[in-house]
Amino acid sequence: MAKIPVGILGATGMVGQQYIALLANHPWFEVKYTAASPRSAGKKYKDAVAGRWNASGGDYQKEVGELIVGDANDLSQAAAASKAGDCAFVFSALEMGKDETRALEEAYAAAGIPVISNASAHRWTADVPVLIAEVNPDHADIIPAQRKKRGWDRGFIAVKPNCSIQSYMTPVYALVKAGYPVERLIVTTLQAVSGAGYPGVPSLDMIDNIVPYIGGEEEKSEQEPLKILGSICDGAFENAALPKISAHCNRVPVTDGHTACVSLEFGSKKPSIDEIKKIWASFKSLPQELDLPMAPKQPIIIREENDRPQPRKDRDADKAMAVVVGRIRPCNVFDIRFTALSHNTVRGAAGGGILNAELLKHKGYI
Amino acid sequence: MAKIPVGILGATGMVGQQYIALLANHPWFEVKYTAASPRSAGKKYKDAVAGRWNASGGDYQKEVGELIVGDANDLSQAAAASKAGDCAFVFSALEMGKDETRALEEAYAAAGIPVISNASAHRWTADVPVLIAEVNPDHADIIPAQRKKRGWDRGFIAVKPNCSIQSYMTPVYALVKAGYPVERLIVTTLQAVSGAGYPGVPSLDMIDNIVPYIGGEEEKSEQEPLKILGSICDGAFENAALPKISAHCNRVPVTDGHTACVSLEFGSKKPSIDEIKKIWASFKSLPQELDLPMAPKQPIIIREENDRPQPRKDRDADKAMAVVVGRIRPCNVFDIRFTALSHNTVRGAAGGGILNAELLKHKGYI
Amino acid sequence: MAKIPVGILGATGMVGQQYIALLANHPWFEVKYTAASPRSAGKKYKDAVAGRWNASGGDYQKEVGELIVGDANDLSQAAAASKAGDCAFVFSALEMGKDETRALEEAYAAAGIPVISNASAHRWTADVPVLIAEVNPDHADIIPAQRKKRGWDRGFIAVKPNCSIQSYMTPVYALVKAGYPVERLIVTTLQAVSGAGYPGVPSLDMIDNIVPYIGGEEEKSEQEPLKILGSICDGAFENAALPKISAHCNRVPVTDGHTACVSLEFGSKKPSIDEIKKIWASFKSLPQELDLPMAPKQPIIIREENDRPQPRKDRDADKAMAVVVGRIRPCNVFDIRFTALSHNTVRGAAGGGILNAELLKHKGYI
Amino acid sequence: MAKIPVGILGATGMVGQQYIALLANHPWFEVKYTAASPRSAGKKYKDAVAGRWNASGGDYQKEVGELIVGDANDLSQAAAASKAGDCAFVFSALEMGKDETRALEEAYAAAGIPVISNASAHRWTADVPVLIAEVNPDHADIIPAQRKKRGWDRGFIAVKPNCSIQSYMTPVYALVKAGYPVERLIVTTLQAVSGAGYPGVPSLDMIDNIVPYIGGEEEKSEQEPLKILGSICDGAFENAALPKISAHCNRVPVTDGHTACVSLEFGSKKPSIDEIKKIWASFKSLPQELDLPMAPKQPIIIREENDRPQPRKDRDADKAMAVVVGRIRPCNVFDIRFTALSHNTVRGAAGGGILNAELLKHKGYI
Repeated sequence: MAKIPVGILGATGMVGQQYIALLANHPWFEVKYTAASPRSAGKKYKDAVAGRWNASGGDYQKEVGELIVGDANDLSQAAAASKAGDCAFVFSALEMGKDETRALEEAYAAAGIPVISNASAHRWTADVPVLIAEVNPDHADIIPAQRKKRGWDRGFIAVKPNCSIQSYMTPVYALVKAGYPVERLIVTTLQAVSGAGYPGVPSLDMIDNIVPYIGGEEEKSEQEPLKILGSICDGAFENAALPKISAHCNRVPVTDGHTACVSLEFGSKKPSIDEIKKIWASFKSLPQELDLPMAPKQPIIIREENDRPQPRKDRDADKAMAVVVGRIRPCNVFDIRFTALSHNTVRGAAGGGILNAELLKHKGYI
Repeated sequence: MAKIPVGILGATGMVGQQYIALLANHPWFEVKYTAASPRSAGKKYKDAVAGRWNASGGDYQKEVGELIVGDANDLSQAAAASKAGDCAFVFSALEMGKDETRALEEAYAAAGIPVISNASAHRWTADVPVLIAEVNPDHADIIPAQRKKRGWDRGFIAVKPNCSIQSYMTPVYALVKAGYPVERLIVTTLQAVSGAGYPGVPSLDMIDNIVPYIGGEEEKSEQEPLKILGSICDGAFENAALPKISAHCNRVPVTDGHTACVSLEFGSKKPSIDEIKKIWASFKSLPQELDLPMAPKQPIIIREENDRPQPRKDRDADKAMAVVVGRIRPCNVFDIRFTALSHNTVRGAAGGGILNAELLKHKGYI
Repeated sequence: MAKIPVGILGATGMVGQQYIALLANHPWFEVKYTAASPRSAGKKYKDAVAGRWNASGGDYQKEVGELIVGDANDLSQAAAASKAGDCAFVFSALEMGKDETRALEEAYAAAGIPVISNASAHRWTADVPVLIAEVNPDHADIIPAQRKKRGWDRGFIAVKPNCSIQSYMTPVYALVKAGYPVERLIVTTLQAVSGAGYPGVPSLDMIDNIVPYIGGEEEKSEQEPLKILGSICDGAFENAALPKISAHCNRVPVTDGHTACVSLEFGSKKPSIDEIKKIWASFKSLPQELDLPMAPKQPIIIREENDRPQPRKDRDADKAMAVVVGRIRPCNVFDIRFTALSHNTVRGAAGGGILNAELLKHKGYI
Repeated sequence: MAKIPVGILGATGMVGQQYIALLANHPWFEVKYTAASPRSAGKKYKDAVAGRWNASGGDYQKEVGELIVGDANDLSQAAAASKAGDCAFVFSALEMGKDETRALEEAYAAAGIPVISNASAHRWTADVPVLIAEVNPDHADIIPAQRKKRGWDRGFIAVKPNCSIQSYMTPVYALVKAGYPVERLIVTTLQAVSGAGYPGVPSLDMIDNIVPYIGGEEEKSEQEPLKILGSICDGAFENAALPKISAHCNRVPVTDGHTACVSLEFGSKKPSIDEIKKIWASFKSLPQELDLPMAPKQPIIIREENDRPQPRKDRDADKAMAVVVGRIRPCNVFDIRFTALSHNTVRGAAGGGILNAELLKHKGYI
């Protein structure tokens, strides 16, 4: 089977690089088009990232290094690539302002190029799904309504949630799905610096220090889960009412891997610690059933040691696509508490985006 | 006025060193006796700490460097020092097992040498006060009952709480005292490595990593506040019933300074954010009224910037004795949330112990 | 005695901040004027540095926080400040391009405002002295010739060398002065991130990593010492011929404090290790004789422990103005080797600049 | 072909763990026996390393986790394992004292079990080869003489050099082999903490700090290369006379990867920078010709970017077995200088040991 040619928007940024690293040997997709800001446009990809390649997943392929970077703002270049058979859809890792991103992603979709995005611009657009492949794969099925409403034929927009919630969203969903609705949740995150891109966080802030603030992150952490757990109603998403979430987001001196300390309260039905472990250890969803290439075999891995998960030791579990959970114990205030970890630029960004694309391919949207 | 001669038990450890650094120019006290484990005993102090001096407060005084380290287990040495006028009381920073520590501290007290301790051994002894000078200075007044019950004349034991609660205990107390009881509190701490002593945490665990576990720390964080907020009843402490606390304790790559992310719920009386800021900014207690040498002018300092407090920038505020609080905002689940920071080996250990000694001196117990 | 009012150019950058921190309680000087780029100009100083204050020497004075930042490019503002008695001379910590800096510093001098600069722009100007107060204080005496040649009356320009050479330049000079010329020197530096300003080095480059390159640093390290050790000839500097220096400059995850590993070869006269220690331990120069306020009591401090100097433990020695040397031992290839450390933003930047100003004041140039 | 069963002595330490991680899917060898100190002996391997597994190469195999750890001091256990077909030879990663190690390794060899060792104990034994497979593979051919002299039939001892020299030893050898003898070399190393084992370096020494000393490391760095470049003469090694080496060894906050800043001087024949690059880029040796499983395809990789090699980005090059070299440029004092990097626990320890074993297997000694 010939591979599907894909384009990467924002290809020189941190997440764009991670896409390219992860797609190096992908069985279905192959990077044939890259685009970035005017500063990089016109250069060879290898020159555009010289001295700033930071993807944790290894080096870029030689062929990608030779690609001439396009101007992401110039839709005619993407259209030409698409016409030439080099860009069946794009992964968007754009790092521009919200309004420009929103408009640009819509322009690509209108031009018949599906957009699978990491940007936050469209997360609150009523007809755009915010997908975690194991949690709400059915949300993809809003695409026909989206296309119809927008007058798009092939194009569409599907997005990913913020990386900060990735560590605990799947565990929480697994409990909900098993019949134990979560009503309230207080979480403190210890987030890696790669989440801020490159150059990102200054080293003076991260030597012998932590920073107890990440702009916009707490709001996203509290609101996005409600859309993800919501339902489609008349071609638009309706948020779930619960859980109520309060987030404290911190930046810590870790390259990759967001850690979350979670305390949560169930409704009237409360599982035991043992039941919870069983639910998590056995949790599988559509990506596992379909055996999608990027899907972790086991989406939630439990570590029984007292002192795990740890970023350096656990972030790469199962292609860096699994969530690793530990310290599952009763909470002295709510019902239970635990620590969860996921790789923010893989599971929480490019890897999650690729898994979404695999799901959308399976569903026939690309 | 001649200075009061003091001894340091566990003088070569991290906290013992910090005592010596902080007492370098103390107006009331002067280190005339040091004792440690048999390994160090008999050496000059400067030789016993060669290559392992880590106090953040600067170097030791030349005179202390020349002291011959005693054997902390050998009470006759302390008794001799006491007789010679070199040891009116001791600061205990012993790092041995709980049972040995408990027995040894009692032996010192029985020998007429008051013990002001950082060790956890006696924190749950019914007639031993766990003092934070600004929070429960009146708890010191159990000492006459303690002496009487034990048959001690001059000796007594008073201790400090765990360093992990120091960042938020004073802010919580200030609210309670202002008429706003706190009922529930969920806290995640990001604790500095100096809290584990030296050699303490291996560097392999603290480069590009965090460790989501500190043995015993969460239990202490949840229980000690209840004794501190409790009351004396028939010569023994009775715990407060509230607040109910749940703690997640993490080790992070920071040398000094414990950070705490706190969400808390009041009872029916709920202050506004503005009232809280006013309460904290104006909070003063007995150490401030007495203008004790080690007391911070303002026990709770509020930083209004989004991204403060930070360990490297805020831990040294007011001789490293103040608690610095920031990000005071409504909580999406409880009532309010905030981030608090204090220097763990100063405010949370040796500095807090010295302030307790100053208080006990003022009250006439030493 | 009324204090001399000084201005800081580039006042919001890393070195500018350090100037302000260090001048907080200076007995002779007082900051009355600040200027920076147009981005900061017009704001209160406290607002211009909000969220980016990183000086290691503590906080800024309240009065300086209230100053309105001037536009460093607008000489009329400085002239007005000068006229108003707020700016007898300026410390320049400008961070613009070389040519602009050169021109701007000359414009200040021409306007009658002496410039004591940290910028590299004028280090190779033939009639501008590159001063280390303990090494070549007599180089200041080119100022009359400089003024005459330029047609300046009060104004002049004097500069500091690069921070990377500060750790070993004074020790090398002390040996030369004692009659032991150094012919060849190979040095590897491990330089702190504060040397790159703020935001400076990205944290992704400094977690679990070092970077073996700092643009331009090796060239400066090899050439500047020759001017410093050179002599005045017909109103211009003539370089020394020796030592020949080869430098490897690395960036390491340290906030403050540059470390240098030095191997050096003498000419035919070779001192013993003991003689070297004696020379260094007893080295004093004009700043010590004059007891200038910023001068370290002992410019070179020797640590005899195997594992010193270390940045965190030794950078603050004697107001962070001393050079700390250790591991003095024979070299297996050259004659001797040693490790030297100095605080790069104090001794190597703002502190060194202030000491130069004190020297120039003593000499009557300001 | 059935795999050859191997034993690991010191299996629970840092290097022992790395052996087990790297042998997980080795085509020739398979771990069937593990031994360690009495503290671990008798436990399952997985229990013996619980909470202290730190190998960078991934997790241990399930089967190894279930092995009962033997007592390394008890030769009868190894002999039994050998008899049972579980231990054709051992990798020694013993961490005991020098004399005990020396005696114990000899006892294994005498018992007919070849010892391929990482320990330093036998590096200066006259008839024991110190092997870098690409540099002195012929040194293995002293084994018949060693066996004869010692009266051993199957057993022998072969060792590896110190990890600190691994980064520059192969580049230096490649130059020598190409006809450009190196006469003098001054090197500063920036060494990773994993080189000190676990717990190893305290985190308090590695946050915002470097330590300019590693016990014994400089002596090893200066002397071992001379044996490696030496020759066999009457069944014993004779050292090379050159190069004369001077080493400054530092510990830096990096998990894995030793960096070396090298300045070197040739004899009268001096290659150009271009020739050097050609020599290094094309360097291959016996392991490459034989295509040994652990051999890097290209032992010396040149990076042309200004700021490489960097530990985090380059240590894993070609299975972490290549040396990565950059910043090749003229030296201002000697002839050339460059920066070189290798993975200290793989290329510099377990991986190098495995490659030596592959070579010795090829040569028929095991």
